[in-house]
Amino acid sequence: MQTHIIPPNQALAAALQQKIDRKTKPLGALGRLEALALQIGLVQQTLEPELRQPQIVIFAGDHGAARAGVSAYPQDVTWQMVENFLAGGAAINVFCRQMELGLSVVDAGVNHDFGKRDGLIDAKIAPGTANYLEQPAMTAEQRDAALQRGREIAHALADNGCNCVGFGEMGIGNTAAASLLTTCLIGAEHGADLYTVTGPGTGLDDTGLAHKRELLKQALRRGGWPTEPLQALSEYGGFEIAMMAGAMLGAAERRMLIVIDGFIVTSALLVAHALNPNLLPYCVFAHHSLEPGHRVQLSFLMSQPLVELDLRLGEGTGAALAWPLLQAAVNFLNHMASFESAGVDSA
Amino acid sequence: MQTHIIPPNQALAAALQQKIDRKTKPLGALGRLEALALQIGLVQQTLEPELRQPQIVIFAGDHGAARAGVSAYPQDVTWQMVENFLAGGAAINVFCRQMELGLSVVDAGVNHDFGKRDGLIDAKIAPGTANYLEQPAMTAEQRDAALQRGREIAHALADNGCNCVGFGEMGIGNTAAASLLTTCLIGAEHGADLYTVTGPGTGLDDTGLAHKRELLKQALRRGGWPTEPLQALSEYGGFEIAMMAGAMLGAAERRMLIVIDGFIVTSALLVAHALNPNLLPYCVFAHHSLEPGHRVQLSFLMSQPLVELDLRLGEGTGAALAWPLLQAAVNFLNHMASFESAGVDSA
Repeated sequence: MQTHIIPPNQALAAALQQKIDRKTKPLGALGRLEALALQIGLVQQTLEPELRQPQIVIFAGDHGAARAGVSAYPQDVTWQMVENFLAGGAAINVFCRQMELGLSVVDAGVNHDFGKRDGLIDAKIAPGTANYLEQPAMTAEQRDAALQRGREIAHALADNGCNCVGFGEMGIGNTAAASLLTTCLIGAEHGADLYTVTGPGTGLDDTGLAHKRELLKQALRRGGWPTEPLQALSEYGGFEIAMMAGAMLGAAERRMLIVIDGFIVTSALLVAHALNPNLLPYCVFAHHSLEPGHRVQLSFLMSQPLVELDLRLGEGTGAALAWPLLQAAVNFLNHMASFESAGVDSA
Repeated sequence: MQTHIIPPNQALAAALQQKIDRKTKPLGALGRLEALALQIGLVQQTLEPELRQPQIVIFAGDHGAARAGVSAYPQDVTWQMVENFLAGGAAINVFCRQMELGLSVVDAGVNHDFGKRDGLIDAKIAPGTANYLEQPAMTAEQRDAALQRGREIAHALADNGCNCVGFGEMGIGNTAAASLLTTCLIGAEHGADLYTVTGPGTGLDDTGLAHKRELLKQALRRGGWPTEPLQALSEYGGFEIAMMAGAMLGAAERRMLIVIDGFIVTSALLVAHALNPNLLPYCVFAHHSLEPGHRVQLSFLMSQPLVELDLRLGEGTGAALAWPLLQAAVNFLNHMASFESAGVDSA
């Protein structure tokens, strides 16, 4: 999939910084919100940015390897949680209502027939990936279809007036897939050895975690360590991860702000970034997950998330919780008085 | 001032934890929000807590020492910023509007005559403290009046139905006062030597900071290192700091949730805590300030703030920015589905 992403023109940076610096506060006193305001202004190429129709999109998919024991939960929990999203009862529903964020759910490849449902985008590639312990998780055709479908979903959001999208995911077994992608795409030489980037996911105990690591070693013995992003995605990816990668690229093509959640979403970003690094200036990193591999990913991408709340839930909950900070950055830039307008002496 | 604070009864903790654990998420997956939900439930002694009429209250006061050069800004900025608050143009106004928080401003001792104004509570003890380089900052009568007035302000908020108050402050020179209080009340043996807890405040350069440290050493040579909170407050405090300490104690008496902002607000908490340590379970620490002494205070109080955004603005901005996390903690506890209600399998 060829994508065309224009990095934000930096010419506006000086004027944005000047606007930030004349606000009635000591220089730099709003800390990371100031950097965020600058970034959002550059992404939107304006001194008066606006976050329009912000959305969380949850991509859901099943993993063939889930039944081999890489997760603490049974595979059925994927579709059950999709039902929970559609019924409004999950954490992400609560947070989206609070933050007044739109929410949609994409069936990228759940092993369940939902029928036609309000709030659910049917983009099912197949009812779950193949088991990567035995064969590649997906074919090249499936992978390319997932990427392309994700890109179209992002373009459709932009067409409907949304300029800011937060990514979330649901898929029993997807921290395992994310660990495999992370070790392949970052490499042990940058700290992403399999042991380090494999964590308890939704809550494996020590025995469960040891078993998960053993299974993932077995997967790597079968499929190798592909460093090429498309090949890594075919071997170990999930449909939800592939579709998120495509959607991130599509969002950056349309100059949307991209809000990155935790470990699994960042594994999709690793794929997208390897395909087109120009998307990175469009990304805001919402939170620091407790999943140990997230630290390695963030360090590789030289990115610092906004908050650290020891979350390890996924669903886009970190993106939703960090949302008010993005809005606050835009609001202070647009609505705070300047020293001149308020008649306050500067230092 | 005698205060009567009942520490939250812990008997409800098990039932609250059980309610948290049955939500449709892996155990502990909402991280620090879960601890926050537990705390708020205990403060309010209910399984269904509610944050009612949340308020930010900014306490403003002037410092006699400001004219000796402890700040990068002239003393007039205190009243000018109060005018900015009243006009709605400061950072805290922007954030309170966004978060739908009430905002009031208390004139605890600003060197300016505001007259009668909407949104301004006149609690002026005197037009600024005395210069602690020459004499104690306030008399025992002034100090006690400030504490008592703060307590009454908190009680009045509670009487009007507010059960959650965030503290903010404004006062040119008040990081210097906070540094002196911090070194006296924590002591060098706990890492609060004057050098460590004196920082650039609103933005002193290295020369300015060295000068500030020199002046504060001079102040300590005059007034000594009182470890008794009331005596320390008299020697070095500000009226806004004393009034905040009283208001915190009053808020805890009325079982309100107390949201602590940055370095100066925490210096008021050190005073309040020394007067009645029972208030601590009512406090939520909003953010980690860039002012270096804040780290020492937090470590002394064994408290971890919710966010770290490199803020050093005051006004209660950190408290306002962390606000959605408090609301999110309450919301997930009240509105998320349980495994049973959603029909989701647990691990």
